[in-house]
Amino acid sequence: MVRANENYLKLRGSYLFSEIGRRVREYQTLHPDAEVIRLGIGDVTQPLAKEVITALHHAVDEMGSADTFRGYAPDLGYSFLRETIARCDYTDRGCDISPDEIFVSDGAKCDCANIQEIFAPDSSIAVCDPVYPVYVDSNVMAGRTGEYNPGAGCYKGVIYMPCTEGNRFVPDFPDKTPDLIYLCFPNNPTGAVMKKEQLQDWVNYAINNGSVILFDAAYEAYIAQEDIPHSIYECRGAKSCAIEFRSFSKTAGFTGLRLGYTVIPKDLKAGGVSLWQLWARRHGTKYNGAPYIVQRAGEAVYSEKGREQVRQQIAYYMENARIIREGLTAAGYSAFGGENAPYIWLKTPGGTDGWKFFDTLLTKANVVGTPGAGFGPAGEQYLRLTAFGSRENTIKAIERIRQL
Amino acid sequence: MVRANENYLKLRGSYLFSEIGRRVREYQTLHPDAEVIRLGIGDVTQPLAKEVITALHHAVDEMGSADTFRGYAPDLGYSFLRETIARCDYTDRGCDISPDEIFVSDGAKCDCANIQEIFAPDSSIAVCDPVYPVYVDSNVMAGRTGEYNPGAGCYKGVIYMPCTEGNRFVPDFPDKTPDLIYLCFPNNPTGAVMKKEQLQDWVNYAINNGSVILFDAAYEAYIAQEDIPHSIYECRGAKSCAIEFRSFSKTAGFTGLRLGYTVIPKDLKAGGVSLWQLWARRHGTKYNGAPYIVQRAGEAVYSEKGREQVRQQIAYYMENARIIREGLTAAGYSAFGGENAPYIWLKTPGGTDGWKFFDTLLTKANVVGTPGAGFGPAGEQYLRLTAFGSRENTIKAIERIRQL
Repeated sequence: MVRANENYLKLRGSYLFSEIGRRVREYQTLHPDAEVIRLGIGDVTQPLAKEVITALHHAVDEMGSADTFRGYAPDLGYSFLRETIARCDYTDRGCDISPDEIFVSDGAKCDCANIQEIFAPDSSIAVCDPVYPVYVDSNVMAGRTGEYNPGAGCYKGVIYMPCTEGNRFVPDFPDKTPDLIYLCFPNNPTGAVMKKEQLQDWVNYAINNGSVILFDAAYEAYIAQEDIPHSIYECRGAKSCAIEFRSFSKTAGFTGLRLGYTVIPKDLKAGGVSLWQLWARRHGTKYNGAPYIVQRAGEAVYSEKGREQVRQQIAYYMENARIIREGLTAAGYSAFGGENAPYIWLKTPGGTDGWKFFDTLLTKANVVGTPGAGFGPAGEQYLRLTAFGSRENTIKAIERIRQL
Repeated sequence: MVRANENYLKLRGSYLFSEIGRRVREYQTLHPDAEVIRLGIGDVTQPLAKEVITALHHAVDEMGSADTFRGYAPDLGYSFLRETIARCDYTDRGCDISPDEIFVSDGAKCDCANIQEIFAPDSSIAVCDPVYPVYVDSNVMAGRTGEYNPGAGCYKGVIYMPCTEGNRFVPDFPDKTPDLIYLCFPNNPTGAVMKKEQLQDWVNYAINNGSVILFDAAYEAYIAQEDIPHSIYECRGAKSCAIEFRSFSKTAGFTGLRLGYTVIPKDLKAGGVSLWQLWARRHGTKYNGAPYIVQRAGEAVYSEKGREQVRQQIAYYMENARIIREGLTAAGYSAFGGENAPYIWLKTPGGTDGWKFFDTLLTKANVVGTPGAGFGPAGEQYLRLTAFGSRENTIKAIERIRQL
C-alpha cells in the first residue's frame, strides 16, 4: 500500500506569503478604494535590459531555422555561457574557478533546494536565524530536521545561528559543529553583509571542522563597498570547503526568465567523494538544461552594453533602498541593510510583534511589508522591506509611514 | 565531518550515452572521412513551428517593456496555459481534469525524476525492462533500490517487469505488489503501445492493490491508431490511482526550450495524504516556475495554426519511422514500434549482443544506434533507432544497413 513522504507533514502549515496575501485581500475587500503599495515581496519590476531583449530575439530566430535550431542543451550548460561566467565573475576578480566547475541552471532557488540531496541523509545543518525558508524546508522534506516546535518557532534537529542587532546580523560560530552551513551574504532578509575577514573566518572554521559551506551569493551585484567579498572563492581555501550559488534574478531582472548557476570546485570532497561528480550526475539525471534562448540572454548580461544597462537597473533599486532606509531613519525608526543589498530590515517600534506592525502598516499606511517572523524566531520584531518597487511607489510608501 | 549521499555511489558507472560517444569518437578519429549518421539519440531536429516563434517574439517584447514585464511566474504555471492544456488535452478528449490539477514545469524528465520524493522513502517500485533510465536512477539516488548487481544488470530492490517479443513489449503484472508503478506508453525505448483495455487492466490492478501508477505520456502525440489511449485518465478510476507526465519536447520540438507538465488529480491520496498538496508544496519550495516566454510558446502550440504546424512536424518524423521500420523489415530484420511512437526497436540478427551489433553498424554502415542493454537486461539483443533525424539521413542510413 503506497504511502506519502511523511517528512512533508512536518512542514509548517501556513506559508508566509499566502498569509500576507490573505490579510491584504481581506483589507482590500473592506476598503476597495485603498491604494495599497507592496514593498514586501522580493520580485523585480524593471523590464529586461535592451541587450538581453536583443539577444533573446536573435536566439528565438535561431530556433526557427533548421540550420541554427538547438535541441537538448549540454547538461551543465553551454560553453559560451560557462566560459563567460568563469571569466567575468571569477578569474577577472582573482578567483581561480574554471568553466567546467560552473553548472548552469534555471535558478538559485532550485539549486539551493536540491543541493542537500548529494549529502548524507543524516547530515546536520546550520542556518542563520532569520533565514530564507528554502534552505530549511528542503531539509525538512528530506527528513533531516525532525519535528517543528511551534512554541520555539524552530525545527528540533536544525542548528540555528541567531543574527541580531547585537552581532550586526552576522552569525557567531555555533556550539555544535554542523556538517552543512548555509550562509547568504548580502543577506536575505536582513540586508547584512560580511566583510572579507569575517567570511575568511567561516572558511577556516569549515576547513577545521570538516564542514561544507553552502554560500548563496544571489545578491552580490548589490554590493557597493570595497571590502565586501562578491564570491566566497575570494577567501583562501574556499575551494576545498564551499559551494556557491548565483542568480540572474536580482542581478539582471531574470525572475521571470529563470537562470542561475552553481559553482562546485573539482577539489571539493565529502568523505573522499567528489561532490562535483555527484552534482554532475544529479544534473544529468534529474535536469535537462536551461533553455538555449535564456542562456544567450544570460551571456548578453556580460556584454559591455549589457553590463552598463544592468548596472543602471541596480542603481535604480539601490536609490529606492536609500530612500527607504534614510526616510525611515529620519522618522525615528531603526532600519538595517539597504546599503549593499536590496533589503531593509526594519525594527518594529517599541518591540511590537512583527505581525501586529504589519497590520498597522497595512491599515494605517496601506503599505505591505513582510513580517520577519516568517524568516525565523529572531525576526519576530522586524519587518522586511524591499527596494524592488517603482520609484514613485517607494517614495509614496515611505512618506505615508513617516506620517503615521 | 560532512559525508556524501552514498546512494549515488550505487549508480552504474558508465552512462550509456557517454559510452556511445566514446566509441563514435574513437571510430571517427581512425576514419576522419567517414560520414557517420546518428539515429541513436532521441533529440528532435526540426525547427520550432512558426506560431511558436511568433509567440516567443511577442512575449520577449512584453518582457522589455515596464507595463507588460513579468517577474516570478505563479508556482504552478500561468492560468492561460493551464486552462488551455486542461481543455485541449483533457476535457476535449472526455477526461475530467481541471486546470488546477495541472502543474507546469520545465520538462517531463525533471518531473519523472522528482516525483518519487513525495512518496515514503521505503516505497517499492516497479519498472518495465527495458526502461528509460531516469525512473530507476532517481530512485537509486533516493536509496530505494539497494545495490546494483552487475551480473544480472539489475538493482536488487527494484521489481522489473520484462517486456519481450512474447508479451508484445507490454508488461505482465508483477509477482510482488509494488507501491509505485512506472509505465511509459507509447514506450521509450521499444515503441510499444497499450490498448485502452490493457491500460484499464493496469488501473484496476493499481486500485485493487493500493498502488500509484506514474504514467509517462511524453510520446502521446505520435499515436496514430484509434484504440490507443492518449491519457491514462481515459481509463475509469485513474484519477484515484495515477499521476501523468506530459512533455512539449517531442510533441512540439521543445527539447531546447524546456516545457512539460504533470497532472495530479485532487482526489489522489496515499495513506490518506493528498499527493496534490505535497507536489504543490514541492513545486513552491524547490522550483520557481517555467519562463513566461516559454509558457506563451506552449500556449501557441494549441492555437489552430500551431496545431497544424506541429502535426506536420510529427508527420515528418513518423514518415522517417515508416522508412526505418519497413526498410529494415524488407531487409529481413525484426523491427518493432515506429507505428505509434518515434522509436524503432530493432532485434539484432541471430541473437547477437547489442553492443556487438552497435559496433557492426558503426564500422560497416557508419550508423549509430543505441544498444538496448542500456535500458535494461531485457534489451540486450536489441538496438533502439529513432525517427528524429533528417529525411535524407534516415533514407541513407537504412540504405546502408540494407546493403550490409
